[in-house]
Amino acid sequence: MSIEKHGTKSIDLSHHLSELSKARTISPLKGVMKYFAQPGILSLAGGLPSPAYFPVSDISANVLVPESFALSPTEPSTSLSWLWKLFGSHDATKEKTQAVTIPKYPVVTGEINLATSLQYGQAIGMAQLQDFLKQFISEVYRPAFEDWAVLIDTGNTDGGYDTVQPWRGCVLCEEWTYPSAVASMVPFNIKPVPVAMDGLGMKSDDLENLLSQWDPVSRQMPRPHVMYIVPVGQNPSGSTMSVARKKQIYDICVKYDVIIVEDDPYYFLQLGTYTSKDDRFPGATPSGKPMSPSFFTLFHLTIRFSFDYQGRVIRLDTFSKTIAPGSRLGWFTCNPAFAERLERQGETSTQAPCGFGQAVVTKILMHWTYDGYIRWLRGLRTEYQQRRDFFIDCLAEEFHLHAVPAVAGVWEGCTVYQASSKVKKSTSMTEKYSARDRTMFSFVPPVAGMFVWMKLHLDQHPSFAPGDEDTLETKLWTKLAENGVLFGPGWIFAANAIAEDSHNNDSGHFRVSFSNAEFADLKKAVTIFGQIIREFFQEEDL
Amino acid sequence: MSIEKHGTKSIDLSHHLSELSKARTISPLKGVMKYFAQPGILSLAGGLPSPAYFPVSDISANVLVPESFALSPTEPSTSLSWLWKLFGSHDATKEKTQAVTIPKYPVVTGEINLATSLQYGQAIGMAQLQDFLKQFISEVYRPAFEDWAVLIDTGNTDGGYDTVQPWRGCVLCEEWTYPSAVASMVPFNIKPVPVAMDGLGMKSDDLENLLSQWDPVSRQMPRPHVMYIVPVGQNPSGSTMSVARKKQIYDICVKYDVIIVEDDPYYFLQLGTYTSKDDRFPGATPSGKPMSPSFFTLFHLTIRFSFDYQGRVIRLDTFSKTIAPGSRLGWFTCNPAFAERLERQGETSTQAPCGFGQAVVTKILMHWTYDGYIRWLRGLRTEYQQRRDFFIDCLAEEFHLHAVPAVAGVWEGCTVYQASSKVKKSTSMTEKYSARDRTMFSFVPPVAGMFVWMKLHLDQHPSFAPGDEDTLETKLWTKLAENGVLFGPGWIFAANAIAEDSHNNDSGHFRVSFSNAEFADLKKAVTIFGQIIREFFQEEDL
Repeated sequence: MSIEKHGTKSIDLSHHLSELSKARTISPLKGVMKYFAQPGILSLAGGLPSPAYFPVSDISANVLVPESFALSPTEPSTSLSWLWKLFGSHDATKEKTQAVTIPKYPVVTGEINLATSLQYGQAIGMAQLQDFLKQFISEVYRPAFEDWAVLIDTGNTDGGYDTVQPWRGCVLCEEWTYPSAVASMVPFNIKPVPVAMDGLGMKSDDLENLLSQWDPVSRQMPRPHVMYIVPVGQNPSGSTMSVARKKQIYDICVKYDVIIVEDDPYYFLQLGTYTSKDDRFPGATPSGKPMSPSFFTLFHLTIRFSFDYQGRVIRLDTFSKTIAPGSRLGWFTCNPAFAERLERQGETSTQAPCGFGQAVVTKILMHWTYDGYIRWLRGLRTEYQQRRDFFIDCLAEEFHLHAVPAVAGVWEGCTVYQASSKVKKSTSMTEKYSARDRTMFSFVPPVAGMFVWMKLHLDQHPSFAPGDEDTLETKLWTKLAENGVLFGPGWIFAANAIAEDSHNNDSGHFRVSFSNAEFADLKKAVTIFGQIIREFFQEEDL
Repeated sequence: MSIEKHGTKSIDLSHHLSELSKARTISPLKGVMKYFAQPGILSLAGGLPSPAYFPVSDISANVLVPESFALSPTEPSTSLSWLWKLFGSHDATKEKTQAVTIPKYPVVTGEINLATSLQYGQAIGMAQLQDFLKQFISEVYRPAFEDWAVLIDTGNTDGGYDTVQPWRGCVLCEEWTYPSAVASMVPFNIKPVPVAMDGLGMKSDDLENLLSQWDPVSRQMPRPHVMYIVPVGQNPSGSTMSVARKKQIYDICVKYDVIIVEDDPYYFLQLGTYTSKDDRFPGATPSGKPMSPSFFTLFHLTIRFSFDYQGRVIRLDTFSKTIAPGSRLGWFTCNPAFAERLERQGETSTQAPCGFGQAVVTKILMHWTYDGYIRWLRGLRTEYQQRRDFFIDCLAEEFHLHAVPAVAGVWEGCTVYQASSKVKKSTSMTEKYSARDRTMFSFVPPVAGMFVWMKLHLDQHPSFAPGDEDTLETKLWTKLAENGVLFGPGWIFAANAIAEDSHNNDSGHFRVSFSNAEFADLKKAVTIFGQIIREFFQEEDL
């Protein structure tokens, strides 16, 4: 796979825009605002309050150092360590920080300041943040077409909402997908069209078949011309596309003229393959493949943008997973014509992302510098890798895990862990049947993201009858919740669940997040889950 | 006018909702999030990063004291004084401030903290901000129906965008209106229907005639069932509705079952009537009516909510004019059924306002307390009053102003100031004709808001021919811009300008803002404007 820079410009894809999107005119007030930049101009045009009336003189923050998290589990953390988390400590005073201050008026030219950032601003975002992101995109993603544009938005959910509006008819998506994306399509009468997945995400042969055999009459709509996809650490399944798969999907999209909306919040949480605790210890080497020194070169190879020589990908990035969800800050990278339409949409809705958030996040990034932010991302990645490993270790302690290769279905090509009950040393009176040989659930350890996607083998339940899947899934979910543990119920992630109020799969699922809980709580949750699911599979009647 | 609390619940107005709005389902992930509130629950359901990964340990701000601005011009300001502004000082170090800190983890129960505010949150906004606003609305607006709901949004532009989407067909608005509101309607194929204005805003008799004589056949659409209105310090005209006019408009809306979207960013910038400098000095008494000690009781009387016993008003408030535009923070107050639909819309788009912004703004409000915020608003009001007075004083120094009562048109019932050239002591060689007796422009000093709305008497131009208005307005605007002064061009504020690409008025207009520039710059801008407009009206040819 070459990563050569094609050096071409994006192609004209304006025929994809809906009437709704084309109808967006430039916000007239914003048209006037461009004159504001003239040095020395006396502007009495805008309804702008004087910054003297902004009730803050300055804002300061104690910012974690970029090296806060170790690059490998053996290295001691600068601030929070694995052990601290295990014992439930979340003492912010242990964090190693440096102070930054944002003054009301700039002391140095180009400095982030409140007089500007708390004023009305451009929908494309603050200039300093634009500049930072241009460098970041150039160096990390290396887009394959020249005239790419970056546009700041208020996070990937709003970004997805904005990128869905310009279309019409239907949108291709993975068979399991992010529910808020579907929820935002439906009111605009845009139907999700699910494509089958395997262990590497959306299947290219199924996509090709779907598009080549599309019958507008029986489908009652023309062939879809937009795809919404989460290619890395897919939500909810956790699957991650290989380079080869991405290339196949991209080429099919070129062939059938499909726009790709690439929602990629977990891109920097690529964790490597899971290795069992026994194989990791002693020596405490990191799980999975050793980290390559060319970490981001590897990333370059896996990123779709290297393929996108036509500018048909609208990439959504977010700071939600790398800074904080509450920043409500992300960005589009796409061809300039689409960026212009998205800017028009932003002007008449959110106007611009919050100035407090933009100022603080940009100040942090500029304080860290580009290299510091890369270091921060690498540390985060290791943290999530440890979380993933710890959580699966807990499952391995609670259940008997049997690793088998999957030859078909959503996990085709992956190693699947089948979970059954461990033989108990002391037999409980309430456990009437041994669940020793019964697979209660299975999963593939994710190589990216925040989630373990569990398939519940409800057909192994003593009182199972076909059609009971939803009832049993909900029954188990509720029992867990009543015992103090919340998992993500699987049915909400089915691409057609919201649109047609039906589920597209015949087994139960849970999406379990290892991203947030203290390690001790992850352990406790798995223990409770073990108790509940064993009881559940030993029931004779519903 | 009584302000009795009717104590009734809002009526069912759900028949107004469009298919688009009705089609919004609850975001499935949010449905799960409600369980998060259970004490001690172990949640592995959401894709939430650990707060340990938020790269800030705390955020501090130096917050201006609520008494920063004097209540009357004679009282010395605590921080920035009128004189400092006159001499162009904007030194933040002169501000009297108090430090507040937002820790990552709460030290006191209920304390604003980053672990919560930078996490994914509810679309309705932070609990502490909700609580503050409930008190604020109860005490300041005293809604006349019991079951009102408050919902935080990302500012009035997004709020207007959200409140427009649920409708269909057309929306009643003032003949001059906020352009971004119209720009957000048009792509959804919603037509603005302008209603004539006078000096008190939208005319009730014209509204009654329009609705009673509505012919769906010739109009090609059913009678409008939604009104978008800016009743105080109207943008751009500056007009402010009287209590009686509001009552008339409200009653007509009840009669014809019309929902009122009340966009009220300038509510707290009610400035009283302008009194000329000569009448104000000596003694430096404040311009206009003396401030009543029952300042907010007066506000109670003028607010539409006191009338709204049915819950048909969706009120939009914003912090843009009272804290900072960059906060991108505002709120809806409306009946619970509409609030629920707006919440669904928020969940799948912006999700929640920015956590940095919400945390800092809420921290400021809680630090100030309710009484402190009221004091801050009263000080701001005086500041804008002084700005309005100073700007009109500058016009009075530069032009001969002749006050006449308007008996018809958009200023009916108001005192109009007609501006002509002052006799020059030394006649300039370039000024070939005296503009002494020629009214070049006219205006009504606004009693609220940020703007002076100037009507350009282009028919007094030597080379005027009917139909030239737009050309002449643009010519003068461009000449001003080339000489370093930007005014708001009038044509962009015409309600049908965007929809039909034509202008609805036969004279030129400028919207001039006195809200932002330093006083010295306001003075300089008026001097340049005087020079340019005199030259312009002395031209023989275009």
